[in-house]
Amino acid sequence: MNVNGKQYRTIWLDPDQPDVVRIIDQRALPHEFTIMDLRTVEDVRRAIADMAVRGAGLIGATAAYGMYIAALTAPETTFEASLRASAATLIATRPTAANLAWAVNRQLAAMETAADPADKIAIARQTAAAVADEDTDFCRRIGLHGHPLIQAISAKKNGAPVNILTHCNAGWLAFVDYGSATAPMYAARAAGVPIHVWVDETRPRNQGASLTAWELGQHGISHELIVDNAGGHLMQHGLVDMCIVGADRVTRRGDAANKIGTYLKALAARDNGIPFYIALPSSTFDFAMRDGIVEIPVEERDPEEVRTMTGRDTRTGQPATIRICPDTTPARNVGFDVTPARLITALITERGVCAADEVSILSLYPEAARITADHP
Amino acid sequence: MNVNGKQYRTIWLDPDQPDVVRIIDQRALPHEFTIMDLRTVEDVRRAIADMAVRGAGLIGATAAYGMYIAALTAPETTFEASLRASAATLIATRPTAANLAWAVNRQLAAMETAADPADKIAIARQTAAAVADEDTDFCRRIGLHGHPLIQAISAKKNGAPVNILTHCNAGWLAFVDYGSATAPMYAARAAGVPIHVWVDETRPRNQGASLTAWELGQHGISHELIVDNAGGHLMQHGLVDMCIVGADRVTRRGDAANKIGTYLKALAARDNGIPFYIALPSSTFDFAMRDGIVEIPVEERDPEEVRTMTGRDTRTGQPATIRICPDTTPARNVGFDVTPARLITALITERGVCAADEVSILSLYPEAARITADHP
Repeated sequence: MNVNGKQYRTIWLDPDQPDVVRIIDQRALPHEFTIMDLRTVEDVRRAIADMAVRGAGLIGATAAYGMYIAALTAPETTFEASLRASAATLIATRPTAANLAWAVNRQLAAMETAADPADKIAIARQTAAAVADEDTDFCRRIGLHGHPLIQAISAKKNGAPVNILTHCNAGWLAFVDYGSATAPMYAARAAGVPIHVWVDETRPRNQGASLTAWELGQHGISHELIVDNAGGHLMQHGLVDMCIVGADRVTRRGDAANKIGTYLKALAARDNGIPFYIALPSSTFDFAMRDGIVEIPVEERDPEEVRTMTGRDTRTGQPATIRICPDTTPARNVGFDVTPARLITALITERGVCAADEVSILSLYPEAARITADHP
Repeated sequence: MNVNGKQYRTIWLDPDQPDVVRIIDQRALPHEFTIMDLRTVEDVRRAIADMAVRGAGLIGATAAYGMYIAALTAPETTFEASLRASAATLIATRPTAANLAWAVNRQLAAMETAADPADKIAIARQTAAAVADEDTDFCRRIGLHGHPLIQAISAKKNGAPVNILTHCNAGWLAFVDYGSATAPMYAARAAGVPIHVWVDETRPRNQGASLTAWELGQHGISHELIVDNAGGHLMQHGLVDMCIVGADRVTRRGDAANKIGTYLKALAARDNGIPFYIALPSSTFDFAMRDGIVEIPVEERDPEEVRTMTGRDTRTGQPATIRICPDTTPARNVGFDVTPARLITALITERGVCAADEVSILSLYPEAARITADHP
């Protein structure tokens, strides 16, 4: 998508140094647009763990490129062991994201088709590029399938914008391009359908305020920033026509883990008769899980993220972190919650829109029928 | 309650200068404990509008003292007109708070019983003190009535703490003393019943992080700060036993306006079978209203409160305000939402606990039966 008019993806190989992976350091946004180089598995691990990259699809693509770097940098004598160690390191960075293990395992399986390290490196490079291209293509298709849902509401609104609420950033910054939740918005925009987006700021890390507001602004999409507390009131007063959010892991029966607070918005949507959509590429499904609340591992992060907030000092213009509570206040920082399928109107995937239940999901992904769920 | 071991109320007359009202400037908390003097109606107006004082009961008490200052400072020749103008000014400061008009009108009615300005001034001073004392007494009683609800849960927990979630600050800082939502917690603490409080930070102004966390810390009550997004997840996982929040206005049928985001927590409590209580003194009732969502005026505040956050710079230790979104991002800042009575387990008042419906409320407040609701 566009940054100051120039086209970017969120991850790419440096064309002049194909052993260098380049990413946008998302921690510097919205105030600075910074490109960062990743040269080692440790660089990749830190980029994911410290959230220089984040978001379902981009975590997957970064892990895929991480495995390419792992192959590139593995000592020839301990090549396989080194690859396995890198795979374990990368998978351990973020426990909730389904795309992470999916991408790493896809790389391991692809590399197994060759014997020679040099061939494995070439395969890993192709596979990383394929993961990134596929992520882009899937998100573009999510846009095509989601756009008619917006258009159908627009048709009843006599030219008034369709008000869409979103949580966190499931935008192009969370994927390689287009985004999941934002793809239908970009498609609607391209088709001239008027929309207005309510952007949840999404504490504690404010990906809505710093990333979604930034990318919608870059693409000229009408939007307003709101606190996470506001969505229920807006829904009660007819100011939200639909919700579209992303997901970090979706079970075979349609329970969806997404950024903490998503569940609260789904409850409010249900209470006010507002459709609530989860947009996701197939890489976000975890077909081995059924009950999301019981089974999906939920990441707990540093409580300091709750006790502080980072932004740009309004007086000095410099980056600053402020403490918002007494120095001694303890905090708890849970990264995700799980929205039960019963609250989800439908899933918007690259293969089409389907109800959030096992039969509907498997009819869209019949190949998943052979995957056994671990849990009854 | 206690501040560094010394007893305070949130508002009082300077004993040496009885024309000076003193308040705690709550904007400086939790990092500094600052006393502020109010000498003119404009001082009072600004203290309420800029939220140096805030919270249902304290807004009422400050308005009551504001009318005393209005009487003290009114020119003798235009005494009545000046009083009326001050009353209108004070009532206009915060549209949602029911206690505001209640306190101002109580002052006007009390002063009408005298003819002479000097007598009116004396009456206004007595009335302000009565409002403050009554607020304190009512909150203390809310604690007595709410405490058995905590105790009943505690009895089933084998000594494990009762986990109570609260939103915003309905603590002693929001009243003259004790608080509404916190009064049962302080009573439980005094009775040795183990509790643990989940403190919603409460964006945009973070009264949970800066005030509730501070006052619970001052009183040694176990608590953890969470983002507003977290409560649903905690409830899904059995980590919340009950919710107790305050209110800014409650209608005769039990719909409750409170800080934005309260409604979302009530929905999550209902979805997880967790009792959800609103604690309020009778001054917060608006018996002339029935349908809270339609009738209660909801304050919209400066969008800059959403686009920024204020705290203490972790490097310099100085107060700082940071911007969390692009400079050009528009924002919407709605101060309150209305939780419909159907989601409220019960109201905890100074007269006892009652269901959130018109019959139950009027059985506790029979004198309100003669007040006609404006709306069917």
